[in-house]
Amino acid sequence: MVRVGIFGATGFTGIELIRILSKHKDAKIVYLSSQRYNSRVISDVYPSLEGFCENKLEDMDLEKAASVCDVLFIALPSGYAYEIASKTLRKVKVIDLGADFRFDDYSIYKEWYTGNCDEYDKIERVYGLPELYRETIKKAPIIGNPGCYPTSAILGLAPALKSGIVEHNVIIDSKSGVSGAGHSPNQINMYVECNNNIRAYNVAKHRHRPEIEQELTKIAGQNTRVIFTPHLTPMTRGILSTMYCNLKKETRIEDVYDIYKDFYKDEYFVKVLKPGNYPATKNVYDSNFCQIGFEIDKHANTLIIMSVIDNLIKGASGQAVQNMNIMFGLPENTGLDMVPTIP
Amino acid sequence: MVRVGIFGATGFTGIELIRILSKHKDAKIVYLSSQRYNSRVISDVYPSLEGFCENKLEDMDLEKAASVCDVLFIALPSGYAYEIASKTLRKVKVIDLGADFRFDDYSIYKEWYTGNCDEYDKIERVYGLPELYRETIKKAPIIGNPGCYPTSAILGLAPALKSGIVEHNVIIDSKSGVSGAGHSPNQINMYVECNNNIRAYNVAKHRHRPEIEQELTKIAGQNTRVIFTPHLTPMTRGILSTMYCNLKKETRIEDVYDIYKDFYKDEYFVKVLKPGNYPATKNVYDSNFCQIGFEIDKHANTLIIMSVIDNLIKGASGQAVQNMNIMFGLPENTGLDMVPTIP
Amino acid sequence: MVRVGIFGATGFTGIELIRILSKHKDAKIVYLSSQRYNSRVISDVYPSLEGFCENKLEDMDLEKAASVCDVLFIALPSGYAYEIASKTLRKVKVIDLGADFRFDDYSIYKEWYTGNCDEYDKIERVYGLPELYRETIKKAPIIGNPGCYPTSAILGLAPALKSGIVEHNVIIDSKSGVSGAGHSPNQINMYVECNNNIRAYNVAKHRHRPEIEQELTKIAGQNTRVIFTPHLTPMTRGILSTMYCNLKKETRIEDVYDIYKDFYKDEYFVKVLKPGNYPATKNVYDSNFCQIGFEIDKHANTLIIMSVIDNLIKGASGQAVQNMNIMFGLPENTGLDMVPTIP
Amino acid sequence: MVRVGIFGATGFTGIELIRILSKHKDAKIVYLSSQRYNSRVISDVYPSLEGFCENKLEDMDLEKAASVCDVLFIALPSGYAYEIASKTLRKVKVIDLGADFRFDDYSIYKEWYTGNCDEYDKIERVYGLPELYRETIKKAPIIGNPGCYPTSAILGLAPALKSGIVEHNVIIDSKSGVSGAGHSPNQINMYVECNNNIRAYNVAKHRHRPEIEQELTKIAGQNTRVIFTPHLTPMTRGILSTMYCNLKKETRIEDVYDIYKDFYKDEYFVKVLKPGNYPATKNVYDSNFCQIGFEIDKHANTLIIMSVIDNLIKGASGQAVQNMNIMFGLPENTGLDMVPTIP
Repeated sequence: MVRVGIFGATGFTGIELIRILSKHKDAKIVYLSSQRYNSRVISDVYPSLEGFCENKLEDMDLEKAASVCDVLFIALPSGYAYEIASKTLRKVKVIDLGADFRFDDYSIYKEWYTGNCDEYDKIERVYGLPELYRETIKKAPIIGNPGCYPTSAILGLAPALKSGIVEHNVIIDSKSGVSGAGHSPNQINMYVECNNNIRAYNVAKHRHRPEIEQELTKIAGQNTRVIFTPHLTPMTRGILSTMYCNLKKETRIEDVYDIYKDFYKDEYFVKVLKPGNYPATKNVYDSNFCQIGFEIDKHANTLIIMSVIDNLIKGASGQAVQNMNIMFGLPENTGLDMVPTIP
Repeated sequence: MVRVGIFGATGFTGIELIRILSKHKDAKIVYLSSQRYNSRVISDVYPSLEGFCENKLEDMDLEKAASVCDVLFIALPSGYAYEIASKTLRKVKVIDLGADFRFDDYSIYKEWYTGNCDEYDKIERVYGLPELYRETIKKAPIIGNPGCYPTSAILGLAPALKSGIVEHNVIIDSKSGVSGAGHSPNQINMYVECNNNIRAYNVAKHRHRPEIEQELTKIAGQNTRVIFTPHLTPMTRGILSTMYCNLKKETRIEDVYDIYKDFYKDEYFVKVLKPGNYPATKNVYDSNFCQIGFEIDKHANTLIIMSVIDNLIKGASGQAVQNMNIMFGLPENTGLDMVPTIP
Repeated sequence: MVRVGIFGATGFTGIELIRILSKHKDAKIVYLSSQRYNSRVISDVYPSLEGFCENKLEDMDLEKAASVCDVLFIALPSGYAYEIASKTLRKVKVIDLGADFRFDDYSIYKEWYTGNCDEYDKIERVYGLPELYRETIKKAPIIGNPGCYPTSAILGLAPALKSGIVEHNVIIDSKSGVSGAGHSPNQINMYVECNNNIRAYNVAKHRHRPEIEQELTKIAGQNTRVIFTPHLTPMTRGILSTMYCNLKKETRIEDVYDIYKDFYKDEYFVKVLKPGNYPATKNVYDSNFCQIGFEIDKHANTLIIMSVIDNLIKGASGQAVQNMNIMFGLPENTGLDMVPTIP
Repeated sequence: MVRVGIFGATGFTGIELIRILSKHKDAKIVYLSSQRYNSRVISDVYPSLEGFCENKLEDMDLEKAASVCDVLFIALPSGYAYEIASKTLRKVKVIDLGADFRFDDYSIYKEWYTGNCDEYDKIERVYGLPELYRETIKKAPIIGNPGCYPTSAILGLAPALKSGIVEHNVIIDSKSGVSGAGHSPNQINMYVECNNNIRAYNVAKHRHRPEIEQELTKIAGQNTRVIFTPHLTPMTRGILSTMYCNLKKETRIEDVYDIYKDFYKDEYFVKVLKPGNYPATKNVYDSNFCQIGFEIDKHANTLIIMSVIDNLIKGASGQAVQNMNIMFGLPENTGLDMVPTIP
């Protein structure tokens, strides 16, 4: 039984971790921290958890957490994880849902985030996208769990870039549900602002872009440039990334399908759609699946790839549990085998 | 007083025409046709029109319509308008909200639509985008009112292409509300299918693509190629088109702003946002405005343009009335001066 | 031309006042106050108003406002209006969209609200529901504009209670869109809280209940007791009140229809539906109409009345302008003749 | 391992049965029928089921179904189940999600439904609300699975009526998500009709009313009369029933709480909220729970009860599986232990 701690238990990703882990047959939540709701019982704050998790929310206590847990999930804003992980290193495994451990290059991290991580390069960690890094995740002390947009984009683009059929400049037009806009009430995530409304935000300057570029560059084996536009879409959960890649030469859609099918042939959580079928965020709602479809625009010799995930599950907490499963030698879909909610 | 007839009065664009024209101080609805609700009073079918329009719905009678009307709006599926317009030519002005008169080249029309129009090339008509063709619209006997996606895309791209700052391959990623998916109940436009869901459809094969290419090619003065992906978005009205153009050389956003500001300096219905501001479909909800914003992705030297309209107004019925106003010498915003609905 | 001032111009009801008044042919906005956005231009804060209202937002200056305006709309939280009205009395007409002037009895006001109004009883004012109090509104110096729920409930119940066909205990089960939950971001009005969710709030203790009881008691001519349950419904605008009244004796639905039809025979803004038709909030979206329908449950001898309004228009700002029109001798629907938005 | 067959597998309740049963550790789907999609694989029709259920859809074959199954779920319109159950009687257990076996009195069934069931009274069956009839469900050959509205209403009202604290006339004002409006596209369940809209339907004549009255009468031990108004609410899933009962005498809310808490003390799926807390449909989204809260309106001496369920789970397929679990001696929450989806 894996003993689990969660820092920042009452944000959206924290709650989703609890929701998943409370049904995980080989894991047990033993520690939850929350500044805001310190000393209250979690099911008192979130009544939907009643009967599933009755842990008390505690103040952040690194020593205690490290001593009672086998793994710590950090569901806090970027900047906290580096300190937590430094202090608990080798005592407990760490899975950070923020950005602190996603970057290979400290200077890029510093350019986009505010955390201060003196010995950034010395800390051993792995970018936690299991479909790409499963083997290293198995032994990693620290996981940088991927961002929600990057998960949808990288999974959607990896086979095409790896196979070399497309050029190394891609456009990613992503649409996210409002749960991606965070847990704190503000003008941006009010109902009357979001309902019946779609708009782009952080155009050409979203922090997920360098993360995507880093990973695509490694996959492609050469510098890959990304244009990334996120949009706020009137739905609670879900991300759809529509991606545009120039094909190097004329390519049949069946061949693209074969490349994708082969790339993900052993992947439980990635579903490649047959030509003619497109994904929809609803198809993966409340599940850990990623669904990928594509189309070729022949007159422009362009491959259009569409990839959908549930931003809170495969885009955050589900993937974090998937990483935990790998790290502790459990079947990868333990606790993650949810059938998407239809309708 | 312009005497107006509408063929196909009970679809979404027909109803929206009635809604607008019933408040138009210089127009009067004198003829409405509907196959389905023939002989019923329109406000009986659509109670929201009670007190605003009490006309009876009639069978389609071309002769009668031509004799009592000054202008006919055709809000029918593509294929009907050619016949109607041929038979009423020179007796009455025609504004077709379908696709029959949008194309310069009959072979392209035939490739994408099913209508049969023997003497297509002989019929004089104008593509009814006032911001581009105002002068010819004034005297045109027939208007091919632009499609909803093309309106948002062409208005968004015209200044950039005309000025020559961008290359002639563009990507258009459009998001439409569900009213764009038509008036007849089917699997696609059911509430439980659309709610909390976004997905692409007709990828790389939507009929609005050749329409957009035709117009952009004329604006750019050279062959312009479009990749076009429409998405069904969980909202009732609105289109957001996010568009990607390669800049020919490094360009300052202020210069782009000046080009757009200048291009639309006399346009009442087009609002160019200052750098740093992005449009949202809600900003033009229930109005005839088009709002345009942009951003430059410097690291990719790409201009990202965002354009929003209300698909039923500037994307259909409002633009049709704008054309009518021009054809009859009325102030262009007569009956179209609606303040967007916030919230 | 009526010169208008608005205190609290940037809340939902303030913005809606501006939206309506900017198109009102006999009124002109000359003064806008806002604490938060003081000294900015309103269209800068709300870009949808660009071209329609370019007034500057000022600090609250009673003397200035009274001197340049013919009428002041107060769109502030309850408690402010009493002071403003006291100080500007007889210099300018006042229409308060808050609760300060809705109550006949100061003790009831004090029980439910926090404002301090020393000479409450001495201040002459009228409850601004035109369908009931048109004649006194004409000459009133101060209007207490009704609450949103009370407007839907009182209009729905008045004919039944006045005619004496029902008993004097009624149940009002109301459903409101989220714009009724205010303009400031909080947990309650976040998108992810409201989307796909309905719930009751302030059950049996909402402040609109005493307001409804006061008015129904006057209409019925005897003490009338109300049970009132408001619900937060996932939509931006609209209120539906479903109301249950015991019939005193067996009654035919046609007779109820006649009573309602007769009661509202001269009312432009109230639409009584024929038996068999029920109202829907969408039918009055973005309009000043109230739509009323009903059904008789014969086996329980109960009259079920359904009444819908747009909470921001007939439930607030539209009704306020209707009152202004009456006070200044203008046709009552000037500036308020909007066709509901379908779809 | 319970071998399961489903007639009508591709409607909303059929799909939800498959979704639940595919994860049920003690049940196995062995037979699925569908007229429309006959001979296709279910995951081909509903891709979200891929990997969870790969059964082929077959024509309706009673003999085969009875021979290979231990239990048949009938997810067909009312009228089919009587014939199916008659012909398979004693060979296989039957759980009907339609109305054919919900009524004690054939004349009431005939008054409200169109099915023809000659020997209605001779067929032994139990109304499948486990919280009331668990003991008889254990041995029943046929279950009439309750309607969605009745489940929410009866669970909410049973303790109050049983305890005798309220009078025997109740008002039930229910709000349902659009998945309750069925699986076939029509005007009523289109996105643009439902979005941003709430309205009542079938007022005082919905077929769930006699079902509710039958059960409440048995609980109360005397004739109980119900006024029932269902509303279509813009959300995919969920029912909220707001219910009004006259208290016989002054009652403290703590005493009501004790009555409810005691009534449901052994019930896993019913959650009674402490005074001051109200239910929300979101709190039970995608789960088999029923959440109940209440308030007393002292000035009217009325008990207001609010009850929420997920209409497709506790209101249909989840409850059906709960019945199956009971009939086959399995722990009642096997396969039904879903944590509600937040946010």
